Amino acid sequence: MGMLVVGSVGYDTVWTPLGSGTDLLGGSATYFSISASYFSSVSLVAVVGRDFRSDDIALLKNHGVNTNGLEIAPGKTFRWSGRYNPDDVNLRDTLDTQLNVFSEFEPSLDREQRNQEYLFLANIDPELQLQVLNQMERRPKLVAVDTMNFWIDSKKPHLSKVIELADVVFMDEGELRSFSEEANLVKAAKVIMAMGPKTVVAKQGEHGVLLFEHGSVFAAPAYPIERVVDPTGAGDSFAGGFMGYLASEEDTTDTAFRHAAILGSVM
Amino acid sequence: MGMLVVGSVGYDTVWTPLGSGTDLLGGSATYFSISASYFSSVSLVAVVGRDFRSDDIALLKNHGVNTNGLEIAPGKTFRWSGRYNPDDVNLRDTLDTQLNVFSEFEPSLDREQRNQEYLFLANIDPELQLQVLNQMERRPKLVAVDTMNFWIDSKKPHLSKVIELADVVFMDEGELRSFSEEANLVKAAKVIMAMGPKTVVAKQGEHGVLLFEHGSVFAAPAYPIERVVDPTGAGDSFAGGFMGYLASEEDTTDTAFRHAAILGSVM
Repeated sequence: MGMLVVGSVGYDTVWTPLGSGTDLLGGSATYFSISASYFSSVSLVAVVGRDFRSDDIALLKNHGVNTNGLEIAPGKTFRWSGRYNPDDVNLRDTLDTQLNVFSEFEPSLDREQRNQEYLFLANIDPELQLQVLNQMERRPKLVAVDTMNFWIDSKKPHLSKVIELADVVFMDEGELRSFSEEANLVKAAKVIMAMGPKTVVAKQGEHGVLLFEHGSVFAAPAYPIERVVDPTGAGDSFAGGFMGYLASEEDTTDTAFRHAAILGSVM
Repeated sequence: MGMLVVGSVGYDTVWTPLGSGTDLLGGSATYFSISASYFSSVSLVAVVGRDFRSDDIALLKNHGVNTNGLEIAPGKTFRWSGRYNPDDVNLRDTLDTQLNVFSEFEPSLDREQRNQEYLFLANIDPELQLQVLNQMERRPKLVAVDTMNFWIDSKKPHLSKVIELADVVFMDEGELRSFSEEANLVKAAKVIMAMGPKTVVAKQGEHGVLLFEHGSVFAAPAYPIERVVDPTGAGDSFAGGFMGYLASEEDTTDTAFRHAAILGSVM
């Protein structure tokens, strides 16, 4: 089954304990769609500027990602820069965010995109997530949403609306606690599930994920890595494997979700 | 097979987000031996003062713990007090430690104790751990050691000697990093394994444990708990289930160690 992802495509400038890089291809929709492409067909909806490199479009296309929905707008591509903590690569500081063409983005889906059965609303403004959801021709088989603290703090009412309409919510531990105002992760997941979603994926960085569903919980550990070069996009790559597997299997049983959590971790 | 544990037995005064208690039965050897008693016979070597409650000795005996090695010395029982962080129960501050009768403790094993085939050196002064190890009549089948940052900082040469002689090392993530001077957990475990032990159990609190052995790694998640009343002794209870299972099975294959990690987590 086909998958639609809406999110960011941009250039990252990143410092990690093992090195740094400038204007690296990044963005939630980039990581997600490349990862999901190993399992299912993926259509991407995002915006880039005139400075976006054609090599990077080719990279997406070479993974079979449908880039019809990648709008190329006048102006500069979205940029993010961050620095990982040298003592704990689970922590990072955002140094700069330049929305650029993203500040004017109004996603508009074509007929094929409106009919996709799997929808991933990657980490972007919840108002844009709602716009996309509202354009779908019928309720997709599975709607998943990711977010970040910035939206929890600044647009909680819109984000709550998105969450009420979603089946699966991806958040890291801090985001779950912040959104739910519950310090305990089990209670935090229950707050989200009471709003509608039947699955909460609590992302725990190097500790893997906890999958909360129907009163059960499943832990998928992350593979411990000796040389962590750059964790940027790890959560989106996880979500890509998770959703891509579910779309390929057309199976939404608990067992399929557990397999999806393992495959997401591998990605 | 029989198990010998040397460690502390004492009274704890504890504040947690859900309550507090004064002079609660605690100590590493207490938690370990009660937990291990569900799997194997256990002999305990420790010291308490004249103020130790006979009820608490009865509790140990009722679990089948052999308390012949529990010396009752003139003076007061070891006391510890601590407060857990209200926002993160994985963090705690030690408010006070009174060694009392422990400051003069010189463990002296009887013949039966010297012949136990499984030995757990719980978190006490590494010099005492060495004294016990040196009294064993022959090399036990399995020697495991636990420790804490206090000994890593104050008695690293003695602790290193104990680790060189052990098969299994239990440390939490922070202790592993501190002892090995490696920020990465995989590298930290390799530093320990290069010293002699073939297994390193990295305790990660609510995230469970990682078991490093022979170039493989096994993750055992902790069961997520909604109402965490008091985590004191969780690591010692884990070690008790882990070692108790191995002693009961007389099996030291990788598979047995993995089962042991799951059963330790259950305890």
